[in-house]
Amino acid sequence: MRILSGVQSSGRLHIGNYYGALRQFVQLQDEGEAYFFIANLHALTTVRDPKLAEELTREAAIAYLSLGLDPKKAVLFRQSDVKEVLELNWILGTVVPHAHLERAHSFKDKVAKGISPDFGLFAYPVLMAADILLYSADAVPVGKDQIQHIEFARDWAVKFNVTYVPGYDPQDPEGKEKGHSPGILKLPAARIQESTAVVPGIDGQKMSKSYGNTIELFGDEKEIKKRIMSIKTDSTPVEAPKPTENAPLYDLLKVMLPESRFPEVDASWRAGGKGYGEYKKLLVEAFHDAFGPARKRRQELINDPAELERILQDGAERARAEASRLMQQVRRAVGIP
Amino acid sequence: MRILSGVQSSGRLHIGNYYGALRQFVQLQDEGEAYFFIANLHALTTVRDPKLAEELTREAAIAYLSLGLDPKKAVLFRQSDVKEVLELNWILGTVVPHAHLERAHSFKDKVAKGISPDFGLFAYPVLMAADILLYSADAVPVGKDQIQHIEFARDWAVKFNVTYVPGYDPQDPEGKEKGHSPGILKLPAARIQESTAVVPGIDGQKMSKSYGNTIELFGDEKEIKKRIMSIKTDSTPVEAPKPTENAPLYDLLKVMLPESRFPEVDASWRAGGKGYGEYKKLLVEAFHDAFGPARKRRQELINDPAELERILQDGAERARAEASRLMQQVRRAVGIP
Repeated sequence: MRILSGVQSSGRLHIGNYYGALRQFVQLQDEGEAYFFIANLHALTTVRDPKLAEELTREAAIAYLSLGLDPKKAVLFRQSDVKEVLELNWILGTVVPHAHLERAHSFKDKVAKGISPDFGLFAYPVLMAADILLYSADAVPVGKDQIQHIEFARDWAVKFNVTYVPGYDPQDPEGKEKGHSPGILKLPAARIQESTAVVPGIDGQKMSKSYGNTIELFGDEKEIKKRIMSIKTDSTPVEAPKPTENAPLYDLLKVMLPESRFPEVDASWRAGGKGYGEYKKLLVEAFHDAFGPARKRRQELINDPAELERILQDGAERARAEASRLMQQVRRAVGIP
Repeated sequence: MRILSGVQSSGRLHIGNYYGALRQFVQLQDEGEAYFFIANLHALTTVRDPKLAEELTREAAIAYLSLGLDPKKAVLFRQSDVKEVLELNWILGTVVPHAHLERAHSFKDKVAKGISPDFGLFAYPVLMAADILLYSADAVPVGKDQIQHIEFARDWAVKFNVTYVPGYDPQDPEGKEKGHSPGILKLPAARIQESTAVVPGIDGQKMSKSYGNTIELFGDEKEIKKRIMSIKTDSTPVEAPKPTENAPLYDLLKVMLPESRFPEVDASWRAGGKGYGEYKKLLVEAFHDAFGPARKRRQELINDPAELERILQDGAERARAEASRLMQQVRRAVGIP
């Protein structure tokens, strides 16, 4: 099974990002042949500063590699390094009904907000579909709000196959029956990623950059300690049992401690006898146990840009081999020499 | 001065096409550095048969080469052979206001006709602008109905430069003043091509494929003779002076005879004494004098596909050198490694 996903750097990652999504994401590399691309072409629709664009790309790659993405297992590459995607983007676009794109949520949302959108935003789903179809992905992990993109990719793959593959029957997309041909573009399946953990921020609301309540994965060590020590707690006395509802400190311990260690902490929390300060120190330790190696690896990659580039080039080469195989078929099908 | 133009094969060319447009078109190669590309990526928005798509591409190349396009002077290439154009297409698209494309004539016309358009048609002007800007064209020959495309290309070039070139001032696009920088994308000028000759068809209406009144440039010799011999004439007797109004035979002689020979024919026409049949035979001769060499050259190219391919590959290589120079600047400007 081939799994494909595009990632964008959203800047500073926090532990809410990790436990909410990134962790499962990286684990995909053990479930199949995973292709991860850093969507730096898509990013151009919003980032218009070349230094920032390059930095975000680098940061995204470093973050994933630090958090366990293994470039020997998964194929990690920059979207812009496989030019074939822009060729498929155009060719696919010629069979995409204009009306579909007007129905795209991402576009409608902007228009509803009174934003005058650029063409790039409108065309976004076509490039996204090209990304998926170029690598003949079987499955694409998405949040619920992105299912439409996969539905588009499926619809357009069918439309392309019906238009250009003689003998293609949408009822038999793999061409198993006599007289049928398999499609050139493979229909991907959406794989809904549930956010497995709701991670509270230091104020008890959901952890989110916009609330300013995050604990950053790769932040300064002192700052992280300070943030953890300022997690909102109530006035329960040291000796009393602590409440487990509306208790961000408790929730964070549950998320960050290894499963084997949590029961013991849970028991002491419910029994009472320890102050919140002690639990906070425990959380600082848990943070470093969980992310120490990733933070170290990140620093190594920052200090060795050549190694990072080598990994990305290697990924691009593997991705290109796949892309160029597909594009030969696509070009032949549409009549481009 | 660099002149750029895209050509599409519209199938069988007739002498109306030649005297109305093609002739001036080919002459551009003597006025500057001419880049002619065969717009086979654009053609995908309407042609969905791979054999036909390839044939139309080949036909367009052969037609231009036969009619005098000199591949040593002009750069002739297939649009699809320079992949950089699809990269610029995406990057440029991220600064194109969506609303501009909704105003594009080609799109509005289709929608007004009740046609449900594909995305490719909507996106058409962006690729067209990318074609022009990729080669830093100074001038683009267009018919009056295509001026909007050049205006778009200019607007978007300015938008790109303003967004991505520090020190760019739209009032000083070449960056001549101190502290100003020249734009990366060069603003093209529209060069309006007037249709210099209105060529009547054999029935006296304007020559047009849709009227079925054409004399084909590369048609069968017997068929051409038959068409010319059936040009509509009136019942003026042999000895009488012939009318010069509403006289397609007269107009065709005027268009097709060399300028040095026409006055003599004109005088005899006005004097009377010769029948229409004689003038028709003269027109058959004039046709072969005018197009005999082109018809011969065309046959040679049809018989030597390797030579045609060599010409197109050579053109593509020259075009790519230019494209890759520009794309290096564009990538650096937007932050794509």
